Amino acid sequence: MAPAADKKLTGLVAATFTPITSQGELNLSVIGPYIDYLKEKQGVNNVFVNGTTGESMSLSVQERKVLAEEWCRKAKGKMDQVIVHVGCLSLKDTQELAHHAAQIEADGIAVIAPSFFKPSNADVLRTFLQEVASAAPTLPFYYYHVPIFTGVNELIEGIEKVIPSFRGVKFTGSDLMDLGQCISYSPPHWSVLYGVDEQLLGALVMGVHGAVGSTYNYVGCHVNKLISAFETGDLVQARTIQFKIQELLSFAIKLGFDVGVNKQLMNELSGLDLGPPRLPVMTCPAAHALTIKQKYDSIFPE
Amino acid sequence: MAPAADKKLTGLVAATFTPITSQGELNLSVIGPYIDYLKEKQGVNNVFVNGTTGESMSLSVQERKVLAEEWCRKAKGKMDQVIVHVGCLSLKDTQELAHHAAQIEADGIAVIAPSFFKPSNADVLRTFLQEVASAAPTLPFYYYHVPIFTGVNELIEGIEKVIPSFRGVKFTGSDLMDLGQCISYSPPHWSVLYGVDEQLLGALVMGVHGAVGSTYNYVGCHVNKLISAFETGDLVQARTIQFKIQELLSFAIKLGFDVGVNKQLMNELSGLDLGPPRLPVMTCPAAHALTIKQKYDSIFPE
Amino acid sequence: MAPAADKKLTGLVAATFTPITSQGELNLSVIGPYIDYLKEKQGVNNVFVNGTTGESMSLSVQERKVLAEEWCRKAKGKMDQVIVHVGCLSLKDTQELAHHAAQIEADGIAVIAPSFFKPSNADVLRTFLQEVASAAPTLPFYYYHVPIFTGVNELIEGIEKVIPSFRGVKFTGSDLMDLGQCISYSPPHWSVLYGVDEQLLGALVMGVHGAVGSTYNYVGCHVNKLISAFETGDLVQARTIQFKIQELLSFAIKLGFDVGVNKQLMNELSGLDLGPPRLPVMTCPAAHALTIKQKYDSIFPE
Amino acid sequence: MAPAADKKLTGLVAATFTPITSQGELNLSVIGPYIDYLKEKQGVNNVFVNGTTGESMSLSVQERKVLAEEWCRKAKGKMDQVIVHVGCLSLKDTQELAHHAAQIEADGIAVIAPSFFKPSNADVLRTFLQEVASAAPTLPFYYYHVPIFTGVNELIEGIEKVIPSFRGVKFTGSDLMDLGQCISYSPPHWSVLYGVDEQLLGALVMGVHGAVGSTYNYVGCHVNKLISAFETGDLVQARTIQFKIQELLSFAIKLGFDVGVNKQLMNELSGLDLGPPRLPVMTCPAAHALTIKQKYDSIFPE
Repeated sequence: MAPAADKKLTGLVAATFTPITSQGELNLSVIGPYIDYLKEKQGVNNVFVNGTTGESMSLSVQERKVLAEEWCRKAKGKMDQVIVHVGCLSLKDTQELAHHAAQIEADGIAVIAPSFFKPSNADVLRTFLQEVASAAPTLPFYYYHVPIFTGVNELIEGIEKVIPSFRGVKFTGSDLMDLGQCISYSPPHWSVLYGVDEQLLGALVMGVHGAVGSTYNYVGCHVNKLISAFETGDLVQARTIQFKIQELLSFAIKLGFDVGVNKQLMNELSGLDLGPPRLPVMTCPAAHALTIKQKYDSIFPE
Repeated sequence: MAPAADKKLTGLVAATFTPITSQGELNLSVIGPYIDYLKEKQGVNNVFVNGTTGESMSLSVQERKVLAEEWCRKAKGKMDQVIVHVGCLSLKDTQELAHHAAQIEADGIAVIAPSFFKPSNADVLRTFLQEVASAAPTLPFYYYHVPIFTGVNELIEGIEKVIPSFRGVKFTGSDLMDLGQCISYSPPHWSVLYGVDEQLLGALVMGVHGAVGSTYNYVGCHVNKLISAFETGDLVQARTIQFKIQELLSFAIKLGFDVGVNKQLMNELSGLDLGPPRLPVMTCPAAHALTIKQKYDSIFPE
Repeated sequence: MAPAADKKLTGLVAATFTPITSQGELNLSVIGPYIDYLKEKQGVNNVFVNGTTGESMSLSVQERKVLAEEWCRKAKGKMDQVIVHVGCLSLKDTQELAHHAAQIEADGIAVIAPSFFKPSNADVLRTFLQEVASAAPTLPFYYYHVPIFTGVNELIEGIEKVIPSFRGVKFTGSDLMDLGQCISYSPPHWSVLYGVDEQLLGALVMGVHGAVGSTYNYVGCHVNKLISAFETGDLVQARTIQFKIQELLSFAIKLGFDVGVNKQLMNELSGLDLGPPRLPVMTCPAAHALTIKQKYDSIFPE
Repeated sequence: MAPAADKKLTGLVAATFTPITSQGELNLSVIGPYIDYLKEKQGVNNVFVNGTTGESMSLSVQERKVLAEEWCRKAKGKMDQVIVHVGCLSLKDTQELAHHAAQIEADGIAVIAPSFFKPSNADVLRTFLQEVASAAPTLPFYYYHVPIFTGVNELIEGIEKVIPSFRGVKFTGSDLMDLGQCISYSPPHWSVLYGVDEQLLGALVMGVHGAVGSTYNYVGCHVNKLISAFETGDLVQARTIQFKIQELLSFAIKLGFDVGVNKQLMNELSGLDLGPPRLPVMTCPAAHALTIKQKYDSIFPE
């Protein structure tokens, strides 16, 4: 099999929610329809599974395996790429998930830095990531960057030497200097994907290759137009769409917009039944999500 | 069996390190000698297992079970109490560990709030804790308070109604108003245990019943004297010992004092071989810990 | 004249509010009655003028001079010591105020570190303070420590060599390790004064010589009893009073407790008319302060 | 006189350094050559005087007046606009400076929110700004936004009703959602000027009208090309220049890049003698600034 790395990851990637029954168990049966919905309604052809949006930190290792496997199976022939996030607090668990992702033929893995004991410098973090990558050396490896403790550039300098499968960064931060230098450093086969949905346009002009985000589950169709407008030089149109998305998200954020609200909003907008979040994320009152849905409808009338 | 809750938890509690081989596997054989050392050399008769000092977040669920079991077995007849910390990011895993702690007859469980998705208010956190306690309803339940998102008092008000097994708080913070109100609120059978070793004296005067900390692994013998001096009204002596511990710890902190350094210092001071920490905690260079040991020797000459 | 340094500063020091007319101008006529009130009703014999409580940063340099002068004049023969805070963002202005404080025979000056451009290390801050002290070399000099950028101990080590008039620290922080080492370092003629009113007891046990705070304007009489109880070894009584003050302050803080609320509460409790705060501090609605006053009355019934 | 507001503020605005002699006094004689340098060597035709770069918080009120007056006098006929920053901690002082700016016929005033007592909500801040504007009602008024306590959009909504002279925002933050909404809200005669030099391109694509920054003192000539490239749709060229500036600034920031270093770098690059900074900003060692200058020369060879 040709290495997945041949396929550069570009465009929109939906960070998926985890379907849960009302009893709090995995609801695998929704994954098929979820994939169809993303493809047909949103024009989104890539998924980022078991990330923050998927509440992976609230899942057991076993549950994460079951989910990843189902996503890979159902996405085959429909999605371009399924990237499985495998980061945990424990390196052992992370390696186990990385190895499993290779077995189920995911298109890549992503890893966030452990957040309880924070790596004390870029070197330790690089060593941690290297240990993860070594458990799945043939899989494209993406670093999920959240700028809590270090700039991304200190980390990625020379990383291709210790992690040959390194293929890019999910950059979730508003420091566009750090982003710009990351793009400037990246070889052509890497992908720099932006993770702050509300200011994607600012990252596109810096040169990102795509975007990973939870809102692409329901504004993907609009953001695809934003990207097209940007690429054809129609900045007025690109800006107009970005401002609409900002209007929606700032409205939602003012009301409170955690993963639980986001998931319920997705339920309302997609018609899928992804269920509630898990504790410690609070279940969103229906009225709360409906208020945001009404804002959506007023901003993006059919 | 009489409920363990009969035994109020007081005095010093050592937050234990996890013994690891140089290959990074659990090293259960050290636990017996570790217990003897704590009792004989430090006068410490309680342990807090699988907490932050024990790097529990870097262990798999299975490893945590094995460790907890071994501590309970070896401590029987030697230690007054073994408290097992069962907090994880995942509620399911936490419940599994709580249930297991009851099976192995631990003397109590402790739970820290999940730190990736932070509970958005005290109510959600209380519900989370309630779900954990319900998996081990007969075990004394201690909340491990780190003041990241809420004062402890919002949490504990009325908590005995939803968690009948609630028995106290490990309070790791420097806000002595929050601490004072916690003490003021606590019924007689609760224990408020302080977790900031370098300022224990300030907590004793507020009325704490004991202390949980990593440094009691090697300054426990001195802190026992501090507590005795305080209880007999000899504040000059209590202050003198507290200042010495502050001198040691501020010295260590200036050099860098994470769990890895702390563990290596313990190796040097105790003669036990607890091994290195796990990634993402960095292994401490021997010279670094030796410098701190020399400071220790100069402050506490034999 | 014998240097004021002969008189070690101990006991309670009220951080004074600045009396303002309803038109927003200085209201000097209240200062005399204010001093009598502090002495007679609160048993407070020292004042700290033009500090944070006095909104000095919202006053012009000229206004600060006028105020300092009036406080010194009216306090003569009534108060033990008048300490004038002279810190500004501008070194020039600070020096001018320090020089003026010497001229009006204040008993000492205090200086907070400039907070807009924060000193990048302890050396720069020490140099800044030295420049201030040199403008009033005969006046006892107190450093007003707020732990924003450095521990106090890095600053004070050896400071007596560059600032011979150095006489102590107003320590406003909850890090009792930093406080303990500060006390441990201080020569006998220095005063370490604590500035976190709600946890004074924790600082007394560490060995502070007194306390500076805004609440001593209206709980000074109770805190004097707390200090007496502590000094006679009656920790139960000391704790009881401290817990009452904590109950009051945590109640106030939950409702919102900035300088404007604090000032209005003082108006209600003292019967003095100190007027409103200045922008950007908001004027406190009367009902808000009354609610806190009712709590006060229920905690400290006459 | 036609109101200055007729002239919309666009393009690059240099935030000026304050020329100081080696004795620490104002050095007005440099202002004329400084203006010529900006115009001729950097193509910069607007200045922002007495802001953070100018260390206005370390100047006395009188010094700020003298400086503002000299800048206005010397810039006449050479610069398009001179904006005088008048923000102080004290409202009285700020009003005095605003009134003075009108007298000396500045082209506008800018005000930063007071940072010691932080306004507790947008309403209080708006009232504070309104009080300032009322002291110079004919002068275009710019709000200097630093996102410490509130988003800009809560502040500016409806602000034109209470401050008729409101003309725009200097937006110094990386939250492009807040920026985007600010632009979206702004009427045509307002100017939104970006203040994070290292990521200007991300703000241009959002629609800012210009930029205010300290680095435009010495990279203005390059950034003018960046803006031209952006406006003609040559994003590759715009990005290339932005990446070069990021390379320079990230290099400088890693070495330490406060106002003192920045000022010394300006001295090296411009050949002007603007002198050292004032305490509490530390004087930059010459070698430190030279290292950054060498980086500049390697990135932007002549």
